[in-house]
Amino acid sequence: MKLLHKKIEQEGKVLSDTVLKVDSFLNHQVDPQLMKAIGEEFAARFRQEGITKVLTIESSGIAPGVMAAMELGTPLIFARKKKSLTLSEGLLTAEVYSFTKQETNTISVSTQYLKEGDRVLLIDDFLANGQAALGLIELVKQAGAHVAGIGIVIEKSFQEGGKLVRETGYRVESLAEIESLNDGQVTFKKGAEVS
Amino acid sequence: MKLLHKKIEQEGKVLSDTVLKVDSFLNHQVDPQLMKAIGEEFAARFRQEGITKVLTIESSGIAPGVMAAMELGTPLIFARKKKSLTLSEGLLTAEVYSFTKQETNTISVSTQYLKEGDRVLLIDDFLANGQAALGLIELVKQAGAHVAGIGIVIEKSFQEGGKLVRETGYRVESLAEIESLNDGQVTFKKGAEVS
Repeated sequence: MKLLHKKIEQEGKVLSDTVLKVDSFLNHQVDPQLMKAIGEEFAARFRQEGITKVLTIESSGIAPGVMAAMELGTPLIFARKKKSLTLSEGLLTAEVYSFTKQETNTISVSTQYLKEGDRVLLIDDFLANGQAALGLIELVKQAGAHVAGIGIVIEKSFQEGGKLVRETGYRVESLAEIESLNDGQVTFKKGAEVS
Repeated sequence: MKLLHKKIEQEGKVLSDTVLKVDSFLNHQVDPQLMKAIGEEFAARFRQEGITKVLTIESSGIAPGVMAAMELGTPLIFARKKKSLTLSEGLLTAEVYSFTKQETNTISVSTQYLKEGDRVLLIDDFLANGQAALGLIELVKQAGAHVAGIGIVIEKSFQEGGKLVRETGYRVESLAEIESLNDGQVTFKKGAEVS
């Protein structure tokens, strides 16, 4: 996705060979017009899949997720990262280890909103080690629903997640695929910039 | 806001005299079309204030916040509830006590995105005890920026927050004002349904 590649080139900060900071438009400050374009792109790529729900994880998945859901005409559900007082019964849960934060979170979603028969599009901001996406897949399976696809804003293709998640057999669409962050440079995967 | 009142009447669950659960369209599952209408309403009420940034807190403020920012043509910033590894330097912070969760969170925003001269619209999902809104005001003051207004999706007018926050002198606009949750019933404040 050209607009996203351009934004990453202009504003992304390469902090190390593995860490790309995109706090100016995705993870802290958010560019609503870019989020809308990202939502439209996800909708275009998955519209034929008969999506009934979009599922993401708080917090950075919410902005791209709500725009994708708006375009697809479905609700968005954001999985919670810990149990809250007003959401104690009827929860599906999965454990997600974050390599960045070096902690394990329990992600949860209410059985009231994710149901058997749902065709679910999973959305997340990053695909790196794949743990978050695998946790979301687990929640959908527990609900007896169907994973209709996985939409990722930025994939770090040099990490394990892409391989792990694609091995599940589900279709993964990443709007930006980064081959390397070596030498302080963002190198996109060749042929990835399709629109 | 009629559409929001109707949604609260149809889907809101009164758990006690003080707790209203709106997980089906705002706090867990999110209705994107309603969020868009809410964003448009906030934009209409604050457009003349020369807003340069919309500021909210993760997670439930993000969906209405990104829609308001989209309509106003500004970026959204979402304050973090705890310090993250990739956001360690140049942070403005404030302490926010949550009566619901009975815990104190440090909310933070990067000095890179909230700056002197910014005219900031604060958005949050609920106004109850007012601690979150007061924390956001504190962050804006620390940045040397100006609070241009405060937009709340649902105000529980029978709690202290509305009074506390209005005493700061800033303009507060709540799209739904709930006078009482007694007897399992949602009672809206009279005259509040202006559009």
